[in-house]
Amino acid sequence: MKPIPQPVKDFVGSAPVCRLATVRSSGEPHIIPVCPAFDGEATLYVDIARAGVSAKAAASNGSVTVLIDEYYDDWSKLKAVILRCRAEPIEGYEMDRAWELFRGKFPQGDAIGWSARLSLALRIRGWTEWGITQALPYQPE
Amino acid sequence: MKPIPQPVKDFVGSAPVCRLATVRSSGEPHIIPVCPAFDGEATLYVDIARAGVSAKAAASNGSVTVLIDEYYDDWSKLKAVILRCRAEPIEGYEMDRAWELFRGKFPQGDAIGWSARLSLALRIRGWTEWGITQALPYQPE
Repeated sequence: MKPIPQPVKDFVGSAPVCRLATVRSSGEPHIIPVCPAFDGEATLYVDIARAGVSAKAAASNGSVTVLIDEYYDDWSKLKAVILRCRAEPIEGYEMDRAWELFRGKFPQGDAIGWSARLSLALRIRGWTEWGITQALPYQPE
Repeated sequence: MKPIPQPVKDFVGSAPVCRLATVRSSGEPHIIPVCPAFDGEATLYVDIARAGVSAKAAASNGSVTVLIDEYYDDWSKLKAVILRCRAEPIEGYEMDRAWELFRGKFPQGDAIGWSARLSLALRIRGWTEWGITQALPYQPE
C-alpha cells in the first residue's frame, strides 16, 4: 500500500463519523454510519452491534470498505477518503487501546453506558482520496 | 415492501448527499458519496462516473444499498435511513424526469457543466430507519 499522507491521516483521525460498507452473505451490500477511532497509522477501530447486519456480514466476508467524507453545497470543497480494509475482531491489549481512543474521542458515550459490543480493527489495505491533497470537480468513483 | 412513511420520504427527499454502497466483482464492497434526487415514491436517482468503480460494480451486481444519515455529537439526535435497492440505467422519458429533479435540487451543477454520465434509477425494495419515526440510542445495524 502507498503510504497515507499526513493530511489524509488527520482527516481520518478527526472524523466523528464514517460510513462502513459490508457485503451480506446474500451478496447485497450494507452500510451504516459508525463512530471511528484511528490509531494514526493503518488501523481504524469501530464498535458495532453484535447481532446487527454489519456484524453478520463482516463475519462472513472480512472485506469491508469505509468512506469518510465531508459534503458541501460548494462542490469544489468536497472531501473524501475511501479505505479498503480487512475487518478483525479486537483482542487483548489492542481492545484496551481501542477503547482508550473511543473514550477520549467520544465522551458522550459514557452518558449512555457505551461499552464494547463487537469491536473491530479495520486494517487498511488500500485507500483513495479527493479534495484533501488533490482537487477534483466532484467524486470520480 | 412496507410503505415508506411521509417523514422518511421527506428526509430522503431533502438530503443533499447520500452514500451509495455497491459490491465489486472481487466481492469487496465499495462506497461513494453522491447527490441523490428522490421521486417522492420509491425511486432514488443518482448520476455517477461512467468508468468508475461504482459503475462497474453496479453493472455486475445490481443490488445496491443507500445510506442517508445525519450525524450529531448528541447521539440521541442521530437519524438514518438505509435503502436496499435495485440499480437500473435510466432511459427515455425517465431520464428527462431525473434531470429535471437534479437541476432543480442542485443548481451548482450548472456552473461546472454537470450533465448525464451514468444516470441510475435505484428502485427501493426495502428500507430501515432510526431517529425519524422511532428513537434509538445509537445505530443498531
